[in-house]
Amino acid sequence: MKKGSLALLIHGGTDNWSPERWKRRFDEVCADRPVWPASEKAGDPADVHYAAVWKPAPGELAGFPNLKVIFNLGAGVDALMADKTLPKVPLVRVSVGDLTSRMTEYVTLHVLMHHRQELYLRDSQRQKRWAPKHQWAAGALTVGIMGLGTLGLDAAEVLVRLGFQVVGWSNSPKSIKGVECFHGNTQLDAFLHRTDILVSLLPLTPDTRGILNRELFSKLNRSSPMGAPVIINAGRGGLQNEADILACLDDGTLGAVSLDVYHVEPLPSDSPFWTHPKVVLTPHNAADTDADEISKYVARQIARFESGQPLQNLVDPGRGY
Amino acid sequence: MKKGSLALLIHGGTDNWSPERWKRRFDEVCADRPVWPASEKAGDPADVHYAAVWKPAPGELAGFPNLKVIFNLGAGVDALMADKTLPKVPLVRVSVGDLTSRMTEYVTLHVLMHHRQELYLRDSQRQKRWAPKHQWAAGALTVGIMGLGTLGLDAAEVLVRLGFQVVGWSNSPKSIKGVECFHGNTQLDAFLHRTDILVSLLPLTPDTRGILNRELFSKLNRSSPMGAPVIINAGRGGLQNEADILACLDDGTLGAVSLDVYHVEPLPSDSPFWTHPKVVLTPHNAADTDADEISKYVARQIARFESGQPLQNLVDPGRGY
Repeated sequence: MKKGSLALLIHGGTDNWSPERWKRRFDEVCADRPVWPASEKAGDPADVHYAAVWKPAPGELAGFPNLKVIFNLGAGVDALMADKTLPKVPLVRVSVGDLTSRMTEYVTLHVLMHHRQELYLRDSQRQKRWAPKHQWAAGALTVGIMGLGTLGLDAAEVLVRLGFQVVGWSNSPKSIKGVECFHGNTQLDAFLHRTDILVSLLPLTPDTRGILNRELFSKLNRSSPMGAPVIINAGRGGLQNEADILACLDDGTLGAVSLDVYHVEPLPSDSPFWTHPKVVLTPHNAADTDADEISKYVARQIARFESGQPLQNLVDPGRGY
Repeated sequence: MKKGSLALLIHGGTDNWSPERWKRRFDEVCADRPVWPASEKAGDPADVHYAAVWKPAPGELAGFPNLKVIFNLGAGVDALMADKTLPKVPLVRVSVGDLTSRMTEYVTLHVLMHHRQELYLRDSQRQKRWAPKHQWAAGALTVGIMGLGTLGLDAAEVLVRLGFQVVGWSNSPKSIKGVECFHGNTQLDAFLHRTDILVSLLPLTPDTRGILNRELFSKLNRSSPMGAPVIINAGRGGLQNEADILACLDDGTLGAVSLDVYHVEPLPSDSPFWTHPKVVLTPHNAADTDADEISKYVARQIARFESGQPLQNLVDPGRGY
C-alpha cells in the first residue's frame, strides 16, 4: 500500500529553517514515504496525509483535503491557532528532550546572570574598575516561573538544585517537588508578590496576550537583595507589552530584563531594546530546534498513528496550547 | 575556667573583610570567649588559643605561644603554607555549603556563557545585529574540571544535570557518578585532549603553580563545535601564566577565558585583561565568604575540639591543601 505523503510547510528564513535541510532529515527518517517541501508542490495534494509545519501561511494547510495529522515543529502553536481555515485534524506539538534542555540552559544562564550582577560586572570591566559588590546567596532570591509545562518543570528543577527559592504559576493546578505552585487568576497576585526574577515560559493565547505589562510588573517583590525585580521572557513576544517594559525599566519598576522574543522578529534596528543598558537580548535562539531530533520525533509519532496507538503531546484547541 | 581567646587576623581591605564585621559575628557565636581583632592587641597573646585568619602577615601567627588551632576563613591556604614561621598546630580550612554553592553558581554561569556564545551575542546586541549562529547542544561539549574536592564535585553534578559531558582530573584517584575521572601526571594529557571548557578549581601548591600555561592549553581539544577551547580559572591567580593566556588568546590557541583570580589583586589598571575582547573577568568574587555561615562553622569546630572530637577539613601540610 502506498504511504501517505508528508508535506513540509516550513517558512523560517534562517539557516535553521532551510526547507532543504529539513527535507534531507525527513527523507532519512521517513523511508519510502514521499516528502515534499512546500516550494515544490510535486504530486497530488490529496496524497498528503501529514504536514510538518513552521509558520505556514494562513490557509496553506487547507489545501490538503486528506490531511490526517499536523506536526508543529516548534513548541508554540499560537500562529496555527489563529488560522481560521486550519483543518480540524489532530495537531501535535514538538516535545523533545533536546528542546527542553536548551530552554533550561537559557533560563539557568539568564537567572544566574542577573543574580550574579553580570550587567554591573561587565560595566565594571569596561571601566577597568575592581569593585566587587555585596553578593547575596541564591537562597535569598525567589525565581517565579510562569508556565509549568515540560519546559517550566525542567528549569525549576535545575534552579532548585542551584539553591534558589522557586515558585510557579500556571493555568491549572500543578504539584512540583520543592516548588510552591500557584494557579489561575485568583492566585496570580500571591505568586507575583513572592517573585524577584520572573521567568515567562507561557504559551501565547487570548488569555496571556500582553500579560507581561506594567500592572503585573508593579506586583513583583520590591524588597529583594537585587532591589528592583527582573523579567526573563523566553515564551512569545506577544506576551509582553514592550512600551511598558521600557517605561518600567526607566522608572525603576524593573531592574533589568532578558528578552529572547519580540512583537516583530527580527527585532527592527530602531528598537530601543538594542541599546538599553538594562536589556540583555538574544535573537529568538533560547531553544534552537534540532532538525535531527525533531524529524525522528515526527517519524515516531506517524508510526504510532499508523499502528493505531494514540498520538502524544496533542494541542487542545479549546485551551489554545 | 577561663575560655581561651580567639584572635582575628583579618587583612582583606574590602567590605567583605572588614575586621569589625567579623568581630560582631564572632562575638555572637563565641559566647563568653574574648574575641580580639588583630588591630586591637588587647590582653596577653598567651591567652590566645585560636586564630581565625585571612591573609595574615608572615610571622604574625608566630606571636601567639599557646595557639591550638588556626582557622583559615577562605578555601585557599597557599599564603599560610608559604609562611615558614607558621606554628605547627592544626590548620582548618573553611568548608561550608554556602561557599560551595556560590562557586557552583560561578562555574555554571561561566560555562553556560561560553557554551551559549554570550560574547558573540552581546557583541551582536551592541551592533544591533540580529544574527543567531548555530547553537550546539550541551552534550556536544566536554567540560573538564581540574580539582575534584568539595567544589569540583558539586559543580560537576550540576553540569552533568545540564547535559554536558564532564571529565575530571585530580591529584589522587576519585570516583564520581557520571564523570570520567583522571588523576596524576600520567593521566593529565588524556584529560586535556578530551576537554573543550577547562574549569580550574585547583589549590595552589608548588606542583600546581603556573600549571595553566601554553603547554597545557595546546593539549586541549581543538575539534569541538566551539572551535578553540575555553579556560575558566576560579582557583588561584598563581595557577595561571598570564602572559601565556594573552598570547594564546591572540594566536587562537584559546577561544576565550573567564578569570576570577590574578597574580596581583586588585588587578592593576594597566593589565591587558581589562580590555581584551575574549576575557570575561570578575574581581575575585566567584565565591564570596558569608561571615555569618563561616563564624558559625568556626564556633562549631572549636566546640568539637574542646569536647575532644576530631577537627574537620584539616589541611595536610605535606600536600599543601
